[in-house]
Amino acid sequence: PPVLKLAVIEGDGIGQEVVPQGVRALRAALEPVGVTVATTEFDLGAGRWHRTGETLTDEDMARLAEHDAILLGAVGDPDVPSGVLERGMLLKLRFGFDHYVNLRPTKLLPGVPSPLADPGDMDFLVVREGTEGPYVGNGGSMRTGTELEVATEVSLNTAVGVERVVRYAFEQAEKRRGKLTLVHKHNVLVHAGHLWQRIVDRVGAEHPDVTVDYAHVDAAMIYLATDPGRFDVIVTDNLFGDIVTDLAAAVGGGIGLAASGNLNPSGDYPSMFEPVHGSAPDIAGKDLADPTATVLSVALLLDHLGQLEPAAAVRAAVESDLAARTGSEILAARGTTQIGDDLVAAISGR
Amino acid sequence: PPVLKLAVIEGDGIGQEVVPQGVRALRAALEPVGVTVATTEFDLGAGRWHRTGETLTDEDMARLAEHDAILLGAVGDPDVPSGVLERGMLLKLRFGFDHYVNLRPTKLLPGVPSPLADPGDMDFLVVREGTEGPYVGNGGSMRTGTELEVATEVSLNTAVGVERVVRYAFEQAEKRRGKLTLVHKHNVLVHAGHLWQRIVDRVGAEHPDVTVDYAHVDAAMIYLATDPGRFDVIVTDNLFGDIVTDLAAAVGGGIGLAASGNLNPSGDYPSMFEPVHGSAPDIAGKDLADPTATVLSVALLLDHLGQLEPAAAVRAAVESDLAARTGSEILAARGTTQIGDDLVAAISGR
Ligand SMILES: CC(C)[C@H](C(=O)O)[C@@H](O)C(=O)O
Ligand SMILES: CC(C)[C@H](C(=O)O)[C@@H](O)C(=O)O
Repeated sequence: PPVLKLAVIEGDGIGQEVVPQGVRALRAALEPVGVTVATTEFDLGAGRWHRTGETLTDEDMARLAEHDAILLGAVGDPDVPSGVLERGMLLKLRFGFDHYVNLRPTKLLPGVPSPLADPGDMDFLVVREGTEGPYVGNGGSMRTGTELEVATEVSLNTAVGVERVVRYAFEQAEKRRGKLTLVHKHNVLVHAGHLWQRIVDRVGAEHPDVTVDYAHVDAAMIYLATDPGRFDVIVTDNLFGDIVTDLAAAVGGGIGLAASGNLNPSGDYPSMFEPVHGSAPDIAGKDLADPTATVLSVALLLDHLGQLEPAAAVRAAVESDLAARTGSEILAARGTTQIGDDLVAAISGR
Repeated sequence: PPVLKLAVIEGDGIGQEVVPQGVRALRAALEPVGVTVATTEFDLGAGRWHRTGETLTDEDMARLAEHDAILLGAVGDPDVPSGVLERGMLLKLRFGFDHYVNLRPTKLLPGVPSPLADPGDMDFLVVREGTEGPYVGNGGSMRTGTELEVATEVSLNTAVGVERVVRYAFEQAEKRRGKLTLVHKHNVLVHAGHLWQRIVDRVGAEHPDVTVDYAHVDAAMIYLATDPGRFDVIVTDNLFGDIVTDLAAAVGGGIGLAASGNLNPSGDYPSMFEPVHGSAPDIAGKDLADPTATVLSVALLLDHLGQLEPAAAVRAAVESDLAARTGSEILAARGTTQIGDDLVAAISGR
């Protein structure tokens, strides 16, 4: 029987609670199609760093590369200096495995409260570039710590890098409602911004059935707060994508439900799936974390593997579970494991 | 009698409608204290550029510099390529006049609807850096327009530039509720971010009565959408400030009410006051624009000149006007000029 080789990085805090529920959901979804899941646990994150000083070694990367996909929880704790795990592990994975598509859907599901008074129908997909922009780590400082310090951060953008993610976004728009919005700030970041705009124009000409528009990132904030239903597919750079998707998560039902996939569509490297939320040390270890974002990330993993029916089963389970909730009391009353049990039962049709 | 020399840049679109109302409000507010306003109109913006190809000449800058303050409406129309007026005029003014503090208050006033279901008490001040960061225009591209194009944008940050705006922000926090939040992304933009964090820590040590915290810009999105009442003073860089303040405007009652000041606190150059909104070509010339953001920008101008009682009179007039509105119908029914009339009457105590 076919075996899916899954690399599992629980990480820290609630990552260790939500990932096991994600793995259970994955197994339940793949059982009907006869695929079994072979997991390899990777000890990465704050715990490992505190013990060994290591973030992610070349050997880790080589072992991870042998898997079909990676499921990641969250990493970090307050005692790790800012940037150590982000640059040394998370971004090293995204860059090393050329995860040039960071896929983040927002769909306000029935029964889920939004902080917006009138959220309307919200169902859009952010395609965030994952390997370029201000995230490349090309910066530095001189006279550091003195009154004459100068610090730089360089955003690097290539036609190759922009075009491949723009193409991916247009393909998604074709499969959805046929609308694509470029979000950037090309009136100020003219060089990077005009590169993005030119490529969107050029690829757009090959997709006459897709309606294309543009929003400055600041205007996109206003739209997300007042009229998120206007979006179908948003394509944007790495930093703007980070910002836009957290706001999207907030208005779309909360960070506890936001899923993401870091894709290498070429298949040269394993793609990685993770909830958008962090390790939440304040609630960790208390069975209080909502595993739904991780389970929805598993649905993205199944999409990526072409397992569309199991993916649909996972989403249907989540939708009916959410529709039955009546607010945060239900989450607290059930806890992480119980929600996992309920989702697995629903996926298995029990 | 003392005379205030005001440079007036109406600009384009609704800028030409809202600025005259702002000037009337300014005159009405200063009358009781015996200050008269001498205005000089500057023809800048899309109109001038279409006619002459000029954005902002050295001679314009020299003449503007002779004024006590600048009131700007908005610039731009769809036929000006993106970036021309932004870089060539607006940012040239901000950089040339060393407007290192970009002040953007958000206060949800009584009677004003918010898109948030439960906005709570919202009263915070964003202190956005105005002369550094990714806005410096230090970027370029090579092999432009080819498949091998590389485009860069460099964020430049100096200890001097960060410290002066951070000091300003702490002073504001002292005068307000004693809380300051640094918004950045120092887990990814480690060089610039750690410079900001170190300076906030150091200046914070001189202000033990101010509580300091930190939010990544993505997390700040979530807070602004779910709990904006948590903020008092936000200090942040130029690009993050642009993004944060548009979301702040949206949740705080809309871009039609959002005021801003571009300050040179040293007084070496005139400070500039402008509504956050743009030139809105779609509604221009129809008496449909709300002049309130411009009038509130005039209140910031009065604060800056130390005219605190006139500033308070302007704010009181706006608050009572807004409290009497019952939604957008009232705006449409009254129009730009009528709202101006009503505000001027209220400022004059008539
Ligand atoms: C943790 C951080 C490096 C990361 C990012 O900025 O991409 C996170 O915010 C995310 O959105 O996945
Ligand atoms: C027009 C543009 C250059 C400007 C900015 O990005 O600062 C505007 O968005 C603003 O916020 O004042």
